[in-house]
Amino acid sequence: MSTIADVASRAGVSKATASRALSGRGYVSEATRQRVESAARDLSYVAHSSATSLATGRTQTVGIVMPPVDRWFFAELLAGVQESLFALDYDLSLYGVPEGSKTRERLFESVLPGRRFDGIIAVGIQPSAHELERLQRTGRPLVSVGPYSDGSSAVSIDDTAAARIATEHLIELGHTDIAFVGGSTDTAELSFGDAQRLEGYRGALQAAGLAAHARVAGAAPTMPGGYTAAAGLLGDRRRRPTAIVGVCDEAAIGAIIAARRLGIAVPTELSVVGIDDHEHADMFALTTIGQSPRDQGHEAVRLLTRRMEHPDAPLELVDAASALVVRSSTAPPR
Amino acid sequence: MSTIADVASRAGVSKATASRALSGRGYVSEATRQRVESAARDLSYVAHSSATSLATGRTQTVGIVMPPVDRWFFAELLAGVQESLFALDYDLSLYGVPEGSKTRERLFESVLPGRRFDGIIAVGIQPSAHELERLQRTGRPLVSVGPYSDGSSAVSIDDTAAARIATEHLIELGHTDIAFVGGSTDTAELSFGDAQRLEGYRGALQAAGLAAHARVAGAAPTMPGGYTAAAGLLGDRRRRPTAIVGVCDEAAIGAIIAARRLGIAVPTELSVVGIDDHEHADMFALTTIGQSPRDQGHEAVRLLTRRMEHPDAPLELVDAASALVVRSSTAPPR
Repeated sequence: MSTIADVASRAGVSKATASRALSGRGYVSEATRQRVESAARDLSYVAHSSATSLATGRTQTVGIVMPPVDRWFFAELLAGVQESLFALDYDLSLYGVPEGSKTRERLFESVLPGRRFDGIIAVGIQPSAHELERLQRTGRPLVSVGPYSDGSSAVSIDDTAAARIATEHLIELGHTDIAFVGGSTDTAELSFGDAQRLEGYRGALQAAGLAAHARVAGAAPTMPGGYTAAAGLLGDRRRRPTAIVGVCDEAAIGAIIAARRLGIAVPTELSVVGIDDHEHADMFALTTIGQSPRDQGHEAVRLLTRRMEHPDAPLELVDAASALVVRSSTAPPR
Repeated sequence: MSTIADVASRAGVSKATASRALSGRGYVSEATRQRVESAARDLSYVAHSSATSLATGRTQTVGIVMPPVDRWFFAELLAGVQESLFALDYDLSLYGVPEGSKTRERLFESVLPGRRFDGIIAVGIQPSAHELERLQRTGRPLVSVGPYSDGSSAVSIDDTAAARIATEHLIELGHTDIAFVGGSTDTAELSFGDAQRLEGYRGALQAAGLAAHARVAGAAPTMPGGYTAAAGLLGDRRRRPTAIVGVCDEAAIGAIIAARRLGIAVPTELSVVGIDDHEHADMFALTTIGQSPRDQGHEAVRLLTRRMEHPDAPLELVDAASALVVRSSTAPPR
């Protein structure tokens, strides 16, 4: 069987050049590519990506660890990562595994340490499970996406600030009875980012002297979660809040749907604000804090390629832009 | 540098056994694993997955080609594929690329032919682009998921039948003025599966002598798409249909939200039926045709592993179960 060395020698180029020409990865001139391909044909050389990888010491693959892609944020982020990696000729190995599962435990304990990647992107990491620490032990370039990033380069919005700004928007409109939908009184059940959003809500109320008015309706960060929690909150006329902060747009949209079903007009009788600027936010005229997970995916790949090139460079933390988007789900209280 | 052969020789086992022990893939006894690991330590052998791959001739990786995972169906399907592959110790290389894009063209022309996988799963393939034909040329075991599967093993629901059953349900309730939301009059814009659903709707009307009543409101197969199309259909009281078939649940839910905003009661003034049994269908009490994309993901991996073991076995076509789920968005017309 011919090797890449035989092909390189026949074509009169280095092994690395022959490898680049045959893999289609990295630049070679058209003339060189044709000479290498012709040599490969003459020798019946079969391109073999494992052999290419041994020759170059690189796998041209990036591993990504994230929750299952069943929420808008993760789907958009993954699309952004994929776009950037594809443009750079990297493959993507996906490990989409639920937080806190046995599968996730196995992934961190015995799967990832045995795999070779040029780098790893970790999304929605849970600090309680020491996940970043275990990824760092693999010694590979690492970038995390999300609010927890101890010891890694990272890209994230400031979740605490996002929820604070959303809550302050309602306070400025004159609301004092503002509930939070989609948190939980049991912090063990909250993701790290959602816990920070709850903290931002509480902080804004406290700063405005409204700490005693804080009310949290525990719910999953989904449309049905927000719907059920809001229906419970809004059912009793006498205890009904005048405004709701959703932990994310999905929960806020669920709250709007619940209000409509109960005959409560948004925004005249109830203001609702979300966080994310989800693809459905516009359809519900939802005021929200906008962020772009797709751009965060591009940014994560940019940080990762820099770490792959300069492993010893200082860590970089990128604060992804977020900003209030005012539509018509918020108004002064009646 | 020590090789896997050195490690195997020192541990007194075959190269394949040493490779299995160090990669954690495939069975070896605990005693053997310890002997191999100890030999690897003594020789400072660095596990190298490319070397493992050269030794075994397998990459333990399955490639998956699909549209971006921004719709429920694809996210659930991907989760199912991932669950099954993870249990079998396969990695997943994801190529999530929009249909009809230049990126997709490049993927099929120059990326996939150069990659080594043990098998490929192709989802939402567009026959017009000859995508399956080009994947078959790579010579790798192949399974497709979705209605188009020429020359490959495949798993799919019968989209034509699903839309026919949904439409017949409305006809049996007594409806004659039934519109389809989420199709397009321009078939070039429709995915192959959505075109089959449109055909199923037309077929049911024709069989009931209602062909002249067919009305298609072109729209993207999304909640905002269904909302906009339905708002247009329902705006004119005198031409308002009494029932709507959504091309998928997202479009049907959009139609329900549009009806509520217009003050049209579902189901007393308007019946709505969807296809999929999306995670939000229950929240909207949507009558629909249920299918499980997650189970289809498991099934795709089962078919693929069988083709990897028996490449010359006859092709298998698995008709994934779907069935009418009656909730309260449908009723006889007033």
